Amino acid sequence: MDPISKLSELFAEFPGIGERQAKRFAYYLLRKPSGFRKELALQLAELGDRIAQCVDCKRFFEKTTTDLCETCRNMNTDKSVLMIIEKDTDYDVVRKSRSYNGAYFVLGGMIPILEKQPSYVRTGELLERIKKDTESGVLKEIILAFSLNTQGDHTDSELRRILEPTVVGKDIRMTSLGRGLSTGTELEYSDSKTLEYALKNRQ
Amino acid sequence: MDPISKLSELFAEFPGIGERQAKRFAYYLLRKPSGFRKELALQLAELGDRIAQCVDCKRFFEKTTTDLCETCRNMNTDKSVLMIIEKDTDYDVVRKSRSYNGAYFVLGGMIPILEKQPSYVRTGELLERIKKDTESGVLKEIILAFSLNTQGDHTDSELRRILEPTVVGKDIRMTSLGRGLSTGTELEYSDSKTLEYALKNRQ
Amino acid sequence: MDPISKLSELFAEFPGIGERQAKRFAYYLLRKPSGFRKELALQLAELGDRIAQCVDCKRFFEKTTTDLCETCRNMNTDKSVLMIIEKDTDYDVVRKSRSYNGAYFVLGGMIPILEKQPSYVRTGELLERIKKDTESGVLKEIILAFSLNTQGDHTDSELRRILEPTVVGKDIRMTSLGRGLSTGTELEYSDSKTLEYALKNRQ
Amino acid sequence: MDPISKLSELFAEFPGIGERQAKRFAYYLLRKPSGFRKELALQLAELGDRIAQCVDCKRFFEKTTTDLCETCRNMNTDKSVLMIIEKDTDYDVVRKSRSYNGAYFVLGGMIPILEKQPSYVRTGELLERIKKDTESGVLKEIILAFSLNTQGDHTDSELRRILEPTVVGKDIRMTSLGRGLSTGTELEYSDSKTLEYALKNRQ
Repeated sequence: MDPISKLSELFAEFPGIGERQAKRFAYYLLRKPSGFRKELALQLAELGDRIAQCVDCKRFFEKTTTDLCETCRNMNTDKSVLMIIEKDTDYDVVRKSRSYNGAYFVLGGMIPILEKQPSYVRTGELLERIKKDTESGVLKEIILAFSLNTQGDHTDSELRRILEPTVVGKDIRMTSLGRGLSTGTELEYSDSKTLEYALKNRQ
Repeated sequence: MDPISKLSELFAEFPGIGERQAKRFAYYLLRKPSGFRKELALQLAELGDRIAQCVDCKRFFEKTTTDLCETCRNMNTDKSVLMIIEKDTDYDVVRKSRSYNGAYFVLGGMIPILEKQPSYVRTGELLERIKKDTESGVLKEIILAFSLNTQGDHTDSELRRILEPTVVGKDIRMTSLGRGLSTGTELEYSDSKTLEYALKNRQ
Repeated sequence: MDPISKLSELFAEFPGIGERQAKRFAYYLLRKPSGFRKELALQLAELGDRIAQCVDCKRFFEKTTTDLCETCRNMNTDKSVLMIIEKDTDYDVVRKSRSYNGAYFVLGGMIPILEKQPSYVRTGELLERIKKDTESGVLKEIILAFSLNTQGDHTDSELRRILEPTVVGKDIRMTSLGRGLSTGTELEYSDSKTLEYALKNRQ
Repeated sequence: MDPISKLSELFAEFPGIGERQAKRFAYYLLRKPSGFRKELALQLAELGDRIAQCVDCKRFFEKTTTDLCETCRNMNTDKSVLMIIEKDTDYDVVRKSRSYNGAYFVLGGMIPILEKQPSYVRTGELLERIKKDTESGVLKEIILAFSLNTQGDHTDSELRRILEPTVVGKDIRMTSLGRGLSTGTELEYSDSKTLEYALKNRQ
């Protein structure tokens, strides 16, 4: 098969990309100077060579002498709080908000409701991590920070069930992100659950 | 002008209705049996005759012997809390959530940021109402319940400014609906402000 | 039931209007001066009194001394061409284009593919009309002007089948609207059928 | 800068890709086995090595011993008709329709209305091509096949102006794709221009 069709096929596997746009990508790259394609190929190789996964929080980060990402290395990170998030991009969003200074753990995905749990969802490694932090006595709170949809709710309750035995009696709080009106929400269109929390959390 | 065009013009004034849909409404009514049109005309007349505005909360309600709506009349309504909302439909939404049992006041609209305040925004009547409730000593909390957009934020802060002198030193709290993740919000797409409150209100 | 709920119910039957918007209509009318509601009710009554259906083309038009709409009355209307359209609004669109000066017939709806044909689709009256025009010898062309979707295609072929026996050997053409690129169409996104016609009709 | 950010930057230059999705691509590639990234990098290199531009129609095609694409080489291609299209993907769409067997010329882009013409729009090379075909006497028709938007209309009329002197008196037709209803068009929503052509091209 010719490289245009082959490239289109590969791009069509990208999240949210259909056949037509994949094809457009291929032709776009054809028109670009070869330098752009070389740079793209180079960075693809670099990904494998220069990016490592943090042994503590499982985030992808730029390789250094240590196997810990900058946040896990950082002395100023408040290790008494651990936020469990679904994926790397969630980390970026929370960082950007500048309203959290604790540690993270990237679960890798949501816990599915019906199908069996995929291998890339790291509940096992999470349990290890929590056990370690609990023994060291540093951990005081676990924040479950998942999207407010059925999958997120399910992941939240599942993790509470899984982690309960380990934290019980250890004076470690398990919390979830607060619910209420989010920026842009119109009262008229907000559901009862959201209103209930918006009233409970009024200030 | 013929009734079809005239009707189309009137429907085109309805919120969110363009010329084309307005016209479709007119033709739709032509095809419907005359009984449907008669019923519609009847109910339009009824609106004026059978609907009154509550003297206390300014809500529209079905006329009764009293000039108070069922909520303002109801002995079980907790008069110590007053929720200020923008419009009647917001009342329906809050009721549906079954998470609030206090009193209401329908402001009638948002306080505009630039233009002068329209007459239908009842800040004057609100102030009267608050003064009355304050003297009677029944009022303990005012909840500002507006949509989380620039207009809602502006209305919130304006009302706090306007009501401050009346409630100061009277041990009356002024609160706003709690902010956080609302149902459906994906962490990845939530803004910093929402995340900040979601973390503050975590539980 | 109170007039607000009743009105909301009636508006919810309007094409493309959901419960929420229907309710907004009711509250919108409450806020409007009673004059607006009176005018609306008046025009609703006028619809039945002042609008008639043209005996020839079945269009709704403002009652006059005759039972023919202005187009069917008009001496300048080219009676040798008859355009069959689905509904009254299609008439307005064709008129607006100023590219047709012939006669019309409003079928009243599309011919469904699976369900039995509804009474408001006037194939019977159309056949009568065609027979009359054929005998008078005035008719030279029948234009089938339906939307280019499965229902429109089906209606087109069904009418050709139904009308065939009446027009055969009478030197009356049966045509359908030309196909090709329509304003806004991007070549990249146009389907094979459209391209085929766009090439056939190139000029 | 780390490869994730760098890759995100490169992907963000892709047509229709925003920063957020670009980032998601980078993380997606991180999670994929290195084999996928290697394959992608390989195909990017292949693009430059194995894809050539046809000297006649300017299309990109898989390199062979000749410098002509399969269509320009093909004995069965009807060289008496030349279709001028904007880009390579348009070629694929026309081929798919199986309704054209003539030659092509890829212009490379639309002729802008206000800004100066970009270098990648090959009006010069087109003129050369037409001159050649005219002298050889093989050319009988030029089809201008552009999208039906303001830019496409402008490109159509500009090319007619540019090519006129060359084809005049040579008995070569210049045509544009036919206009009319395209698949999916609803009569009610079609504009006057489209209706005008739909009537003119009725059959």
